[in-house]
Amino acid sequence: MQDHSPLARSTHLIQPGQLLARGVCRHLAELNFAALEEYVPERGRRVDVMALGPRGELWVIECKSSRADFMADSKWQGYLDWADRFFWAVDADFPADILPEDTGLILADGYGAEIVRMAPETRLPGARRSAVTRKFARDAARRLLGWRDPQVGV
Amino acid sequence: MQDHSPLARSTHLIQPGQLLARGVCRHLAELNFAALEEYVPERGRRVDVMALGPRGELWVIECKSSRADFMADSKWQGYLDWADRFFWAVDADFPADILPEDTGLILADGYGAEIVRMAPETRLPGARRSAVTRKFARDAARRLLGWRDPQVGV
Repeated sequence: MQDHSPLARSTHLIQPGQLLARGVCRHLAELNFAALEEYVPERGRRVDVMALGPRGELWVIECKSSRADFMADSKWQGYLDWADRFFWAVDADFPADILPEDTGLILADGYGAEIVRMAPETRLPGARRSAVTRKFARDAARRLLGWRDPQVGV
Repeated sequence: MQDHSPLARSTHLIQPGQLLARGVCRHLAELNFAALEEYVPERGRRVDVMALGPRGELWVIECKSSRADFMADSKWQGYLDWADRFFWAVDADFPADILPEDTGLILADGYGAEIVRMAPETRLPGARRSAVTRKFARDAARRLLGWRDPQVGV
């Protein structure tokens, strides 16, 4: 029997990595983290999920749908410039033993997620944290305005 | 002749103050400020527009559609707890001379706005600014997730 829920229908339109990101964002919401998907911390870089915690914690989560997807990512070590902790999010079929041990691990699907291994913390300096948080705030508000009022041209 | 544009149709659904807020947000976007409408800085308070500038400036804008609307607002002086500058936004028919002189003034309609009088600046202390910016960031991202994925239940 086909699943005709809005979620099931919408999954035909998005990529496997984006589906993982949705599950990750749902779990982050449960942890009281506010998350942005496909976030661009600086020109030429895009992280799958950037999250801001209740005490100002900044986490980056990269979603990998396959070994090849992981192997193609040579940039992830740079992500610690914008976050206190870095996680991979993968599904149950992913060969998790190929992931570096000193990173966090989240098991995810399109409906939810679970932190399997907490990422080590490398706290951002204060000024850096302020700048990253401010950019996150401005980008989130501008995206929201783009939804509410498409004529604003943001 | 009736205006059948999406904007004209949508204006039947929103209040006069919200219409001013939309124009204000468009102008703020031109000034490179990212704005949130109907923002709740703390329980029991709601500001019409809260905006975050490129250098971290925090502005609050209250939209008043009539003299009565202004007279009913006894809370505005408290808004400086969350902002460096405070503005009123009113339309061309509003009796602007009843507004306090030591506040900013924005002339607005549903399509745009203009700053007529810059608000004086009372800069927030650093720790306060960080806390307000963080809350703005988290609230904006959560609202956005509510649009993208209504099932997340934020």
